[in-house]
Amino acid sequence: MRILNEMLGGIEAGGTKFVCGVGTGPDDLKTATFRTTVPEETIPEVVAFFQKQGAIKALGIGSFGPVDLREESKSFGFITSTPKRGWGNYDLKGSIERALKVPVQFDTDVNAAIRGEVRWGGAVGLTDAVYMTIGTGVGGGAIAHGRIVHGLVHPEMGHLRLPHDRERDPFPGICPYHGDCLEGLACGPALQARWGKPATELGEGHEAWALEAHYLGLALVNILLTLSPQRIILGGGVMQNQFLFPIIRAEVVRMLAGYVRDPEILERVDEFIVPPRLGNDVGVLGALALAEEALEKAA
Amino acid sequence: MRILNEMLGGIEAGGTKFVCGVGTGPDDLKTATFRTTVPEETIPEVVAFFQKQGAIKALGIGSFGPVDLREESKSFGFITSTPKRGWGNYDLKGSIERALKVPVQFDTDVNAAIRGEVRWGGAVGLTDAVYMTIGTGVGGGAIAHGRIVHGLVHPEMGHLRLPHDRERDPFPGICPYHGDCLEGLACGPALQARWGKPATELGEGHEAWALEAHYLGLALVNILLTLSPQRIILGGGVMQNQFLFPIIRAEVVRMLAGYVRDPEILERVDEFIVPPRLGNDVGVLGALALAEEALEKAA
Repeated sequence: MRILNEMLGGIEAGGTKFVCGVGTGPDDLKTATFRTTVPEETIPEVVAFFQKQGAIKALGIGSFGPVDLREESKSFGFITSTPKRGWGNYDLKGSIERALKVPVQFDTDVNAAIRGEVRWGGAVGLTDAVYMTIGTGVGGGAIAHGRIVHGLVHPEMGHLRLPHDRERDPFPGICPYHGDCLEGLACGPALQARWGKPATELGEGHEAWALEAHYLGLALVNILLTLSPQRIILGGGVMQNQFLFPIIRAEVVRMLAGYVRDPEILERVDEFIVPPRLGNDVGVLGALALAEEALEKAA
Repeated sequence: MRILNEMLGGIEAGGTKFVCGVGTGPDDLKTATFRTTVPEETIPEVVAFFQKQGAIKALGIGSFGPVDLREESKSFGFITSTPKRGWGNYDLKGSIERALKVPVQFDTDVNAAIRGEVRWGGAVGLTDAVYMTIGTGVGGGAIAHGRIVHGLVHPEMGHLRLPHDRERDPFPGICPYHGDCLEGLACGPALQARWGKPATELGEGHEAWALEAHYLGLALVNILLTLSPQRIILGGGVMQNQFLFPIIRAEVVRMLAGYVRDPEILERVDEFIVPPRLGNDVGVLGALALAEEALEKAA
């Protein structure tokens, strides 16, 4: 285990807000939140926050996307093709790095989150684990052999193609690219569009949830069959409905149908599919864990 | 690059045949094939082959499954719950190791295959790549950051759940566990069951192939969104139909619908989805590459 007592900075850069944190870990974390408007407004607020906190040694950014993570690329560290005004083709890593003059490690929000759970949360000691967020969007990040899976670009697990029984659920899905991919069927706005009111106003007894758990269960089955993680962590706004967890777990076990017989899944599924132990700080603490990586790289 | 001139052994242990090879790599590979009957018959033949070839320094096995890959498990190196008579709960790694008295590295057949393509074939220099076999069964193995993805058990990509339009394709699928998972819809025996004759007798113009390419394309899209590989290699009996490659590539690009914009996929898809460069030797050469790992571990 690494022992670091350096002050670090972390930014969970989201489409709605930037959560900024300073500390050495969960115990002394100090955060502030800024609205995501346009870069000319948001970035100076973020920079001013870190400058006020005193010297940090390194900073991590877990960003909404899509982002460019290829270190050899001219747009490395950029947010690329987002429709969000002002942020398309924006050099997020560079802007922060130039203003704060510290090493910066940049990754997707979900990759940061799984890194945070491995460092301080519910995946400590694991080598292979997945974090998924189900909220305004759906996305996933993974660790394999202890390292964040990047590959050619970065995973985009929100857009998995799943069986969609249009007799049971005639809703066509809302993904502008794919219609009824996972995100198109199961993100928060899809719930609102399908049922005519926000997910927060659907009661626990609403038929929405069995369908939601079914789609999420299908997605987890596919991810499990592809990555074979030791644990799957589910966060994001939709998963604030804790009653979803047991339904999703039951769906995964039912749909695997005994094919993957590991006791971690069959007997201890309550510990296999879990909420983030870092709670709502998972994003910013994940960014802090990225800052540790930046420091190690710079050393 | 590792330079090894040691004589190594490799076994591609399949449900129909065991392909055994001896050599230092592709250039001096010498192989022999034995029918998979029962262990009491097949294993002595395999052992005798290696004893006749003279001293090998280490051996790799890429096995049909499911297998137990957890090194701390009592049944590590066993074939576990196969319905194949005599091979259920069989200590394949132990039997070979005790007979030949050399270090043995044991993995799934598809994990061996991707290791072989990374070592000597079409994935040399890549850190993240996938090998899929589409034949009697369907399976996939992956490398992430240069290491074989194992995780909790091992990937079982053959059983991905995919959209199945029963109006276009009323065939229910033949997977005894899941019905219409990828393997249930797209393996060789599924083709035979759906169309009433063996895949080898369906001509290139048969409507079977557009449907087959559609299911394989869906599976590759999901794998690509989960693992973000730099290349996907497709082998196995069904993929001997080389005319499938362009149709699968077109399906993948069409279904991604511009969401993943990397030029490797959009502009160079001919090099992104490819047959194994090692051809029919991919399995046994993959096992030989595992033997190198056994030797490095033992050193």
